[in-house]
Amino acid sequence: MRPLVALLTDFRTQDHYVGAVKGAILSVCPEAALVDVTHDIPAHDIEAGAFALLASYRAFPTHTVFLAVVDPGVGTQRRGLAAHASGYRFVAPDNGLLSHVLRESASAEVRQLTNSSLFRLTISSTFHARDVFGPVAGRLAAGTAFDQVGPVVEDPVLLARGGASQLSATEWKGRVLHVDAFGNMTTDVTRSDFDRILAACDGDPTRMTVIVEGSTIPFAEAYADVAEGEALALLGSSARVEVAVNGGSAARVLGAARGTPVLVRVVGETAP
Amino acid sequence: MRPLVALLTDFRTQDHYVGAVKGAILSVCPEAALVDVTHDIPAHDIEAGAFALLASYRAFPTHTVFLAVVDPGVGTQRRGLAAHASGYRFVAPDNGLLSHVLRESASAEVRQLTNSSLFRLTISSTFHARDVFGPVAGRLAAGTAFDQVGPVVEDPVLLARGGASQLSATEWKGRVLHVDAFGNMTTDVTRSDFDRILAACDGDPTRMTVIVEGSTIPFAEAYADVAEGEALALLGSSARVEVAVNGGSAARVLGAARGTPVLVRVVGETAP
Amino acid sequence: MRPLVALLTDFRTQDHYVGAVKGAILSVCPEAALVDVTHDIPAHDIEAGAFALLASYRAFPTHTVFLAVVDPGVGTQRRGLAAHASGYRFVAPDNGLLSHVLRESASAEVRQLTNSSLFRLTISSTFHARDVFGPVAGRLAAGTAFDQVGPVVEDPVLLARGGASQLSATEWKGRVLHVDAFGNMTTDVTRSDFDRILAACDGDPTRMTVIVEGSTIPFAEAYADVAEGEALALLGSSARVEVAVNGGSAARVLGAARGTPVLVRVVGETAP
Repeated sequence: MRPLVALLTDFRTQDHYVGAVKGAILSVCPEAALVDVTHDIPAHDIEAGAFALLASYRAFPTHTVFLAVVDPGVGTQRRGLAAHASGYRFVAPDNGLLSHVLRESASAEVRQLTNSSLFRLTISSTFHARDVFGPVAGRLAAGTAFDQVGPVVEDPVLLARGGASQLSATEWKGRVLHVDAFGNMTTDVTRSDFDRILAACDGDPTRMTVIVEGSTIPFAEAYADVAEGEALALLGSSARVEVAVNGGSAARVLGAARGTPVLVRVVGETAP
Repeated sequence: MRPLVALLTDFRTQDHYVGAVKGAILSVCPEAALVDVTHDIPAHDIEAGAFALLASYRAFPTHTVFLAVVDPGVGTQRRGLAAHASGYRFVAPDNGLLSHVLRESASAEVRQLTNSSLFRLTISSTFHARDVFGPVAGRLAAGTAFDQVGPVVEDPVLLARGGASQLSATEWKGRVLHVDAFGNMTTDVTRSDFDRILAACDGDPTRMTVIVEGSTIPFAEAYADVAEGEALALLGSSARVEVAVNGGSAARVLGAARGTPVLVRVVGETAP
Repeated sequence: MRPLVALLTDFRTQDHYVGAVKGAILSVCPEAALVDVTHDIPAHDIEAGAFALLASYRAFPTHTVFLAVVDPGVGTQRRGLAAHASGYRFVAPDNGLLSHVLRESASAEVRQLTNSSLFRLTISSTFHARDVFGPVAGRLAAGTAFDQVGPVVEDPVLLARGGASQLSATEWKGRVLHVDAFGNMTTDVTRSDFDRILAACDGDPTRMTVIVEGSTIPFAEAYADVAEGEALALLGSSARVEVAVNGGSAARVLGAARGTPVLVRVVGETAP
């Protein structure tokens, strides 16, 4: 199987940084295929990086090594990590970036990057993606055994669990996790929340509504189930409730943004 | 020959979507090389996507599979298509995105994507690039026979033909199809239009002018044939008449944009 | 070794241009791995392109062929070049883009691209990256001997050498070369300048300061060595003095930009 490294950073693409990281990976694993998840995570925004990784990693084959670098603490004593979780491997700073993928795995193994023979020869204090994380990811992709990177870590940094909460028998409270380039809004109301809410509706999705910034929004199956310019909610491609506007930007139409509260409410009664 | 998939979408690169599509392709075709044409087609702009595909596909080797997704109708009953045209293969929603490449081929074969064994196991209603089109493109690249995707389609959706029109013996009317990142403007006046106009000038290109927003612009061979800051027209790299400004942005200097009318006029007489 | 071509242009990624260049490379070298350094060099900004190439190329393995195209003179008589320097190969227009990599090599060999059998069959006057430079880079990566591209060039265009200058025993004057996406500012004060300044401090880095737009900034080892929101200077990942703000944008906080003068000053006396 051809080695595969997927990259996720907050470096953007206007500078030479992403190219240099890829050069460093190919220096130790010339056969690697390199895939960008995104490099446009907002600068230093660990929470956004953790969500993007969560939303994408299962679309990749399990031999993928993910190199995830959103690293405001570069050059400090924060640890570097490698993780083996759900069949995938990840390399990242120890700052919470791997929180969601670690929580999704029943038996994640996390190790600290201490084996400096896997690093670049000279290590800058500001560019560990090129000098530490990239080379380790490349070597793991090339076949270096996972336990060679360093000792097991029992206490990786984890972000607060977050997630939607049930307010009453008919109300759940969540928030907008991410607004995408189309203005679609992914919330922290997960598929299992959704299933519970649907059960509270006796399985009748027309009784579910989402309230965002005062607008009451119906559930549907696809964007085009509502008229152009109208808002809808659906179970989105990241297995979370998503609020969208058919042919438009939900964020703009509803005046919402990341962090905006979202209320899911069960209304009416199921027809007998 | 190594399998090759070229991607063209309106997803932009700030989200995880393009990465997830690539993960899905590599899950079924681990050896594939993946090349981005662009992901910055304006959201839902099928006409712009169709032009970008037309302008680029012949630069690729013929074993390339193009995955083109600008898909405002995702989740509705619109069909998914695969096409075999001019030696290339294409996978796209049936909404006109393939219009130009189908028209350029004498014997295009178009099929509907109905063979769900080629799709991802679970299919969201909002992300067919990851769940349907990407996997089919990957499998075609990996060697799945073209006729396995589904039955032949005789009536794919096609955009209006468009193109420049001749107003008189000495005047052709077209419009700006695309403004690029430099501000260069590609028009719908094609190489064959150009050849006809040149014939009307008795082969003397100094008699050809382009009129855009009231400015009369001479033809030239290269940007630097006119002074810095001056406008020129030339037969551009997409085999269409292009209006540019040497060292500047034609769109800004001329106050033009996509859709702006363009008049090509033959002036004067050829010296005897 | 798998052929590897790294691309650096001012094309941006919103158009089909980068995709077309890659298609042209893969048409002559189907096995090539393609890596983007960046395509967001400001339009026609040869100096910025030369810096990005300098800052990145040594992170790549030496079999890499760099395709560097910032080419305001496309279509004129400006030469096309291939260079062999420091073990790497480069393909670029002859306009100074290779200045820094040529100066870093003791024995660079530069040749003019005259062998048109290595080019695309038809050559536009506006897109030599697709029609000339890309195909040559692809063929070099695929194994074409370097001396096949054309005759030796003794006088490639070189940008002015630039660099910091020593004003007195305790003062060096430089300028900001590049502002990155985080707002970090790389200066033209090199590692060897830095070493000389450090010697003038008797090796005591706490005696070094940088003055930018009236602010006096201390040297440190890592971003987090100063309080959040505070400025610092350090020897950055491109082996040049960099001015940054911990958790913020130095360019914004200091009101500086590319070209802003920077003064490095030795202050105080070393404790006896």
